[in-house]
Amino acid sequence: MEPTARLAAFAVDTPAEAIPEAVLHAAKRTLINVLAVALSASTDPSVDALLASEGDPPGDEASIIGRGRGQLGQAALVNGYLAHLQDYDDTHFPTILHPSAPTWPSTLAAAESRGASGADLLAAFAIGAEVACRVALSVHPWHYDAGWHITGTVGGFGAAAAAARLLGLTAEQTANALGVAGTQAAGVREAFGTNAKALHAGHAAASGLRAARLAAAGFTGPTTILEGRRGFWAIFSPAGHDRAPIDALARPEASWELLNNGLKPYANGVVSHPLQDAVIELRNRHAIDPDAVVAIEARVHPLVLELMNREPATGLEAKFSHQHCAATALVDGAGHEAQFSDARVRDPLITTLRARVHATPDGSLREEEVHVTLRLAGGTTHSTHVSHATGSPANPMSDGQLARKFATLAGERLGDHQAASLLDAAWSLDKAKTIEPLAALFRGAASAV
Amino acid sequence: MEPTARLAAFAVDTPAEAIPEAVLHAAKRTLINVLAVALSASTDPSVDALLASEGDPPGDEASIIGRGRGQLGQAALVNGYLAHLQDYDDTHFPTILHPSAPTWPSTLAAAESRGASGADLLAAFAIGAEVACRVALSVHPWHYDAGWHITGTVGGFGAAAAAARLLGLTAEQTANALGVAGTQAAGVREAFGTNAKALHAGHAAASGLRAARLAAAGFTGPTTILEGRRGFWAIFSPAGHDRAPIDALARPEASWELLNNGLKPYANGVVSHPLQDAVIELRNRHAIDPDAVVAIEARVHPLVLELMNREPATGLEAKFSHQHCAATALVDGAGHEAQFSDARVRDPLITTLRARVHATPDGSLREEEVHVTLRLAGGTTHSTHVSHATGSPANPMSDGQLARKFATLAGERLGDHQAASLLDAAWSLDKAKTIEPLAALFRGAASAV
Repeated sequence: MEPTARLAAFAVDTPAEAIPEAVLHAAKRTLINVLAVALSASTDPSVDALLASEGDPPGDEASIIGRGRGQLGQAALVNGYLAHLQDYDDTHFPTILHPSAPTWPSTLAAAESRGASGADLLAAFAIGAEVACRVALSVHPWHYDAGWHITGTVGGFGAAAAAARLLGLTAEQTANALGVAGTQAAGVREAFGTNAKALHAGHAAASGLRAARLAAAGFTGPTTILEGRRGFWAIFSPAGHDRAPIDALARPEASWELLNNGLKPYANGVVSHPLQDAVIELRNRHAIDPDAVVAIEARVHPLVLELMNREPATGLEAKFSHQHCAATALVDGAGHEAQFSDARVRDPLITTLRARVHATPDGSLREEEVHVTLRLAGGTTHSTHVSHATGSPANPMSDGQLARKFATLAGERLGDHQAASLLDAAWSLDKAKTIEPLAALFRGAASAV
Repeated sequence: MEPTARLAAFAVDTPAEAIPEAVLHAAKRTLINVLAVALSASTDPSVDALLASEGDPPGDEASIIGRGRGQLGQAALVNGYLAHLQDYDDTHFPTILHPSAPTWPSTLAAAESRGASGADLLAAFAIGAEVACRVALSVHPWHYDAGWHITGTVGGFGAAAAAARLLGLTAEQTANALGVAGTQAAGVREAFGTNAKALHAGHAAASGLRAARLAAAGFTGPTTILEGRRGFWAIFSPAGHDRAPIDALARPEASWELLNNGLKPYANGVVSHPLQDAVIELRNRHAIDPDAVVAIEARVHPLVLELMNREPATGLEAKFSHQHCAATALVDGAGHEAQFSDARVRDPLITTLRARVHATPDGSLREEEVHVTLRLAGGTTHSTHVSHATGSPANPMSDGQLARKFATLAGERLGDHQAASLLDAAWSLDKAKTIEPLAALFRGAASAV
């Protein structure tokens, strides 16, 4: 079976019972995380612009996280944007794909449109995320190295697959949907540090949902989108690709990539997380006075300098500055949205400390690894080695850590009581007859902000 | 000035009076052509699917050609799809870009949302098309050769520039809009022969319009989208690019690319048009009996075999079969939508004749050139040489030919009377205070179909 057909068959033919309990639990965790970060992002002024950009009337078919209701496509677009805006969503470590930001919004909107059960929703997400991760594995690292934002480009495959399953498409219709979504893949890394980066995830979500809805109505797309001569592999990854991760879906014992997916403790690019872990560990262990630090020296994975090396002018840019991440970790001991405000970027102490961060690339390190030394005035040094950053597969956030992250971020928007109800609804989603009780809570309509 | 900034400044700072009369006339001709082909396409069943794909309610802010009204974004999406569905829209010969299908829908929707005059509409389209053509020139031929559908990828720049001008954006906002649109560029050639090809134009139109609306509200995108390290040139055209066509905009005597843009006499891929011209010329001159033709031999530009070499199974595929185009030209003397029905593809005589078409590539020919010999049973041969196909820059369709094409295609949908009124409204658009009288006619709401 050719790879595109294989993905389509996997999407619609995999029985829900074949999805391991651990995978469904991981799916719930990603939903809880997405709801938390999207609720936190939902008050950003850019969201008003995005909601208005499609024109009026807004519609009321589907739920928008923290923002009421909208049309189906609009809900997918805005929810994808919200889920990725703070760079605080989950990460598939083998590929740096963010599978949830494109896949969850499409899954949620499709489920709402069909009145699907919580169990069907979770299964569809697990399938969609698997499809996205497998496509990502098939083009990594060549695709990302070429300059593509893999969440924008590959995300649409996951969004289409999840929606195709919920909408009851045949395998052939699903192959068409994957073709329509795949030829709409978009997003380049030049957009990092701008609002357009999060829009990539929104486009992938809306495009995947639209592809499934179109294919259900007989619309055709290239059913050889991956392997075709002018298809995704040839054009988006000319330096190389590997069909093995997709062929592997034929084996019933294939692993599930959601188990290689991590949640973030910091609201910035993931490659800097080991550095922040290390700085916070030293700060807390030695009660460091930030003013006394003359140098923060780090040996880092080369991607840190490739992706996150800049003197930021705005909070959004600071999320891609390892210097800012290290400086705020030292001063605040945290990396939430508050550490990435424009005002925090201009803070004199933070500005001084950014200039004292000296990172050197070390190709022998894993991405979740770092060596850090703090040099203090007077000559004292403190060093540490982080081998697995918090949130990486070998050191995942616990359900309790996730619940605390959720309470902080969702509580700001919904109030503590409604946030707690929403968390309960998410944990018990597999027993819900429809997702409306969950959606009613995350829409924020009844909020007491 | 860097290229992205140059395009932005050109888009918003060029005075309308600087646009030559011939360019504005060419702009009118592309609009008349787009309205004709979109009206003809508007009854295709796939349009129902597309209209429904964004969800309800449809909205009524902007006009959809032949289909009433919709939301702004939806109108841009559907009009772009309609304009390109029959592959019967205009072509920028130097790059094979179809500038109108992405640019006109965004221009029309933006004009409606602002109550713009006909003159402002025409100027904005001329500017947007120029931006799209200049970006296309900067990446041609490397970009298309890499497998991209240049109308999908480059079209968004034109759509964004035209909308930015009508919405009154500053040059800086326009650079952001170009960045947002550019990082949403999409469309691979694997989609040729499927509904997804026309969706590329719809996406470019909607994405460009959205980018301008977002940038007007302060949304940021990469303002170095063309020249940036991870920008459009680096990623979408790694084999080469040329900034000269964009730098040339700094010179007030720069030529206008709409003057290198042609309208199509046949509803299929443009590279096969010389072949159809030649076959029709021989058919008419020698009163050929198709059953007597044992071979149609052609020396063609290599792109004919690269892009349009297939035994089609459907009408849509037949638009990319030079064999089908030649066979129907011989039998019917035409290449309208009627020649590309599924039934026509299965016709026994056409099927037989397709197998009798023998094309050989000749790299010394220009794209608008062909040598054709018809071999008849009994040994008679008839040959001809077309040096400039109808619709190419050196042999453009006349205004009268365009009016006949319009009357045929628009008349089918609107009836002859309303079609004639619409044509009058288009020719006198430069004097219209708003575009509502034109839109009221092309919406088709008052149609007597």
